[in-house]
Amino acid sequence: MTLERRNLETRVWLQILSLESRIFSALNGALSDELGLSVAKFEVLAQLDRYPDGLSLGHLSQILKVSGGNVSGLVRRLLADDLITKEMSSQDRRSFIAKLSEKGKLLFEKARVVHDLKLAECFDAVPTGDLTADLASLKTLSGRTRGPDHA
Amino acid sequence: MTLERRNLETRVWLQILSLESRIFSALNGALSDELGLSVAKFEVLAQLDRYPDGLSLGHLSQILKVSGGNVSGLVRRLLADDLITKEMSSQDRRSFIAKLSEKGKLLFEKARVVHDLKLAECFDAVPTGDLTADLASLKTLSGRTRGPDHA
Repeated sequence: MTLERRNLETRVWLQILSLESRIFSALNGALSDELGLSVAKFEVLAQLDRYPDGLSLGHLSQILKVSGGNVSGLVRRLLADDLITKEMSSQDRRSFIAKLSEKGKLLFEKARVVHDLKLAECFDAVPTGDLTADLASLKTLSGRTRGPDHA
Repeated sequence: MTLERRNLETRVWLQILSLESRIFSALNGALSDELGLSVAKFEVLAQLDRYPDGLSLGHLSQILKVSGGNVSGLVRRLLADDLITKEMSSQDRRSFIAKLSEKGKLLFEKARVVHDLKLAECFDAVPTGDLTADLASLKTLSGRTRGPDHA
């Protein structure tokens, strides 16, 4: 591997990291200022919103890009806030199914508006044509990028 | 804002998030399996390596894309592991300067090798020409993306 190639890889990675971090902070700031919600909690609510019949905690961990330990902590805090409910699975009595509560649904609807408005603000200066091209290159890059060995 | 534009923005954001998360997990897995180091700790060591005269904790928080609370926790754990030293600033007696210790320097040199090899593995299937083009589009997108209001 040449030094140029290594520098290029490092610069691409730092650029991805900084882009992700800029948008993440903007979304996190808006959600927590306006609704006291973190992006991490928002992502759990968003997934549960897509599955009205609920999701097992294992499945939820798989979908979300966080470790099992983090999901348990998030679920515990969302339960404490009455934003989700947890019940025993009828198929597998050893596993629990999480669902949005009524309070969780209402909060998620508000949060989705805040999230989408802030994201629109982040990308406000990017023309739609360019953003479409960016999506295509990101998909290609993602498809070629090797993740952790166990994934 | 049209629905198409909103969907496009969401898809770009989820793509960035998933790309970042895939590479982050790969690096984190390699660093922790081989050296018991997290990417977060590695990033602190990498910054301190660039500043042999040390960095104040405030400056370190600014450079790293983590909140002040996280930096304090990381610094505390790196101190406990003797990987960094902390001394009072000669310019400002209210602030502390963190530096790499000898043990920290040695570990960082090993960690940099592990990090760079794993990153090379992640991008192994991406030709250099395409990676160069990706860097350019990421930079343009980053430059146009608005971050948190306080930044």
